[in-house]
Amino acid sequence: MSDMKATDSGLQSLSLGEEIVRRIAELGAISQTKEHLARLFLTREHRAAAELILTWMREAGMRAHLDAIGNVCGRYEGERPGLPCLMLGSHYDTVVDAGKWDGPLGVVTAISCIASLNRRGRRLPFAIEVVGFADEEGVRFASTLLGSRAVAGTFDESVLNTRDRAGTTMRQAIADFGLDPDHIGAAARTRRELLAYLELHIEQGPGLEEQNLRGGVVTAIAGATRLSARLIGMAGHAGTVPMAFRRDALTGAAECIGAIEEFCRTDHGGLVGTVGYIHAVPGATNVIPGQVSFTMDIRAPTDPHRKRAVTDIVRQLDAIAKRRKLALQLNMTHENRTVPCAPWLKEQIAEAIASEGFRVFELPSGAGHDGMAMIDVADVGMIFVRCRGGISHHPDEHVEHADADIGARVLLRVIENFRPRRAET
Amino acid sequence: MSDMKATDSGLQSLSLGEEIVRRIAELGAISQTKEHLARLFLTREHRAAAELILTWMREAGMRAHLDAIGNVCGRYEGERPGLPCLMLGSHYDTVVDAGKWDGPLGVVTAISCIASLNRRGRRLPFAIEVVGFADEEGVRFASTLLGSRAVAGTFDESVLNTRDRAGTTMRQAIADFGLDPDHIGAAARTRRELLAYLELHIEQGPGLEEQNLRGGVVTAIAGATRLSARLIGMAGHAGTVPMAFRRDALTGAAECIGAIEEFCRTDHGGLVGTVGYIHAVPGATNVIPGQVSFTMDIRAPTDPHRKRAVTDIVRQLDAIAKRRKLALQLNMTHENRTVPCAPWLKEQIAEAIASEGFRVFELPSGAGHDGMAMIDVADVGMIFVRCRGGISHHPDEHVEHADADIGARVLLRVIENFRPRRAET
Repeated sequence: MSDMKATDSGLQSLSLGEEIVRRIAELGAISQTKEHLARLFLTREHRAAAELILTWMREAGMRAHLDAIGNVCGRYEGERPGLPCLMLGSHYDTVVDAGKWDGPLGVVTAISCIASLNRRGRRLPFAIEVVGFADEEGVRFASTLLGSRAVAGTFDESVLNTRDRAGTTMRQAIADFGLDPDHIGAAARTRRELLAYLELHIEQGPGLEEQNLRGGVVTAIAGATRLSARLIGMAGHAGTVPMAFRRDALTGAAECIGAIEEFCRTDHGGLVGTVGYIHAVPGATNVIPGQVSFTMDIRAPTDPHRKRAVTDIVRQLDAIAKRRKLALQLNMTHENRTVPCAPWLKEQIAEAIASEGFRVFELPSGAGHDGMAMIDVADVGMIFVRCRGGISHHPDEHVEHADADIGARVLLRVIENFRPRRAET
Repeated sequence: MSDMKATDSGLQSLSLGEEIVRRIAELGAISQTKEHLARLFLTREHRAAAELILTWMREAGMRAHLDAIGNVCGRYEGERPGLPCLMLGSHYDTVVDAGKWDGPLGVVTAISCIASLNRRGRRLPFAIEVVGFADEEGVRFASTLLGSRAVAGTFDESVLNTRDRAGTTMRQAIADFGLDPDHIGAAARTRRELLAYLELHIEQGPGLEEQNLRGGVVTAIAGATRLSARLIGMAGHAGTVPMAFRRDALTGAAECIGAIEEFCRTDHGGLVGTVGYIHAVPGATNVIPGQVSFTMDIRAPTDPHRKRAVTDIVRQLDAIAKRRKLALQLNMTHENRTVPCAPWLKEQIAEAIASEGFRVFELPSGAGHDGMAMIDVADVGMIFVRCRGGISHHPDEHVEHADADIGARVLLRVIENFRPRRAET
């Protein structure tokens, strides 16, 4: 492993990367199904993963507990007890048929960094906390960022009444897990307690790989607008209605999908648009579709960019529907603002990357992260680690051993050189 | 009802059209569900409709029975018993959420014509038979033309093992209906027994309405090719994969659907192409689709025209897939040859239409009909009756009272002036 230079952090026999990769494999083995990785909120496997992470936290010299929503929380005191903390975190739930790295890498890396400080007896002029968020993906209850929203104090209690596919309410699932759904408020932290929120995560895109870099500084977590569309035409017999007489909702939808792709493809400013779901009614081989429903997911590095794109795309869809004599119904189902990373945190991350001998590269995050919730209670910074082929949410998701090590060294350097903002102003 | 001229066929108090419309309503009330019309093969409602039609046949002076597959068969002898027959027919099964006219109009109109002859004591130098086919739509067992294939002697016994959605085999369903599945061969007729097969049916398209005509001469029943396609790309995160890196199976499918539409739209020779079914995997709002399946249904007035179109469309799809780095799998799931109507029968139908005072208009049938099976045992002729807006397979399917009457007068005139081909050669 010649490409892993020893750091100045006094590692023993095990490099940070080795420990991280071993622990990622251990967590990846805790799955609801054997065929693929799935570890959903408030399941038995959630519990098993939490216990394992709590053990690692304690071994790293932290006080550790499960909070009111099922987040694992560890605290490593600073030079004296009770100081405000630098919070490190990511999530440890997964999607269904997931990769092992999305989420856990940030939790495990943070713990390994603390362990390194602890081995050296190093205390800093601030505390460090590590949070493993219990639910970021939102698979079980179709509501994302539940863990970080609880910590940020923005948890919406009405979601306690949503049900999973088996019909169990979130309220019941929390109680079954052994937690009190009426005490989620106890997980909330205040801005005064937190110096910053810092997350290390796999990129989930091909940007770093394309630049031949192993890590990067995140500029912002891109906002997203999701729309559902329904086109209504006229069903008809596939054999008897001449082309010129048709009001085919599916050929209309196809033109819309093509227009969305073309609009985003020629933007060249980081705009992405995706139609992920489509359904044609009646859906028979020999019937012209009378109705088609589809979804749109539109993201851009800034909110004005995204909003302008949504307006322009909607205008194009309206024109297509009108020309084809189709009725178009549009419904905005979801809108997330862009969360910018704090310039002072970006700067400290960039310094750490440069000090490790790598070129500094900034890139936005197209995916959502816990920082989207944490922004309400702290300034947010993010470090991206390269993942192979930009693939995520898939068993092929992979991080090179060496890249995991470099990510940890960068994070450790950020921690050791961390200068709270308040000290600067 | 001033637009219904009295015919020379000696009607009593009830016009042909009045009787037909009343009977269509009676049959339309026999449905498996109250909400919409559905009358599937070998159901209790099939039995009830058969009993009603047998009664009407007997009232019209015919011998009538249920044959081995559940077709209702009536025979009106000619000047002497045992003469070859002119066979009139259509089907009395329906799709789900059907209109009342598709199929039953041909059966009911034929019976009313025979009743008219019978009332006048008129016997012709040939017998007339009326068949109500038990299954043309093929909804229950996903296999069409079962009734007419049995009569044509081309029933494929292997379909007896297919199952409906409830898991019942066709063999069992036939036995439960009180018929013997091992005696379907007994329904078969020979070419020697049949002078011709003649069917009156709603157009199911807008051609006659556009010409401001109430009836027309069918030139051919268009053949159809059905293909299923699967495009395979690479699933990915909707937020993190830049447009240029995507191998999106759904934008690829959208381009294919657009190409099929454009190819058929600019053909101007009666070619129609339909994508009726589409399915994107995984089908989540925030995931780029990695796989998309869709169907194609392609029809043209002649076989060479259709085959050339299929070849050209497949070539375009291959090029789209290649350019987008998608894998394309194509599978031909169904192919029906074009069935031309016999020129000598078209001529006699045209004469009858002209004698009723209407302009003769020829048009192909884009929809399939029992003639596609009957061609194996007889020359085939078809009369189309206008239906409102070209709508069929829908509760809005509608035939004007006056048009039903005119259809019946044309059919009666064809029967009364029928000259068998053998007499001409």
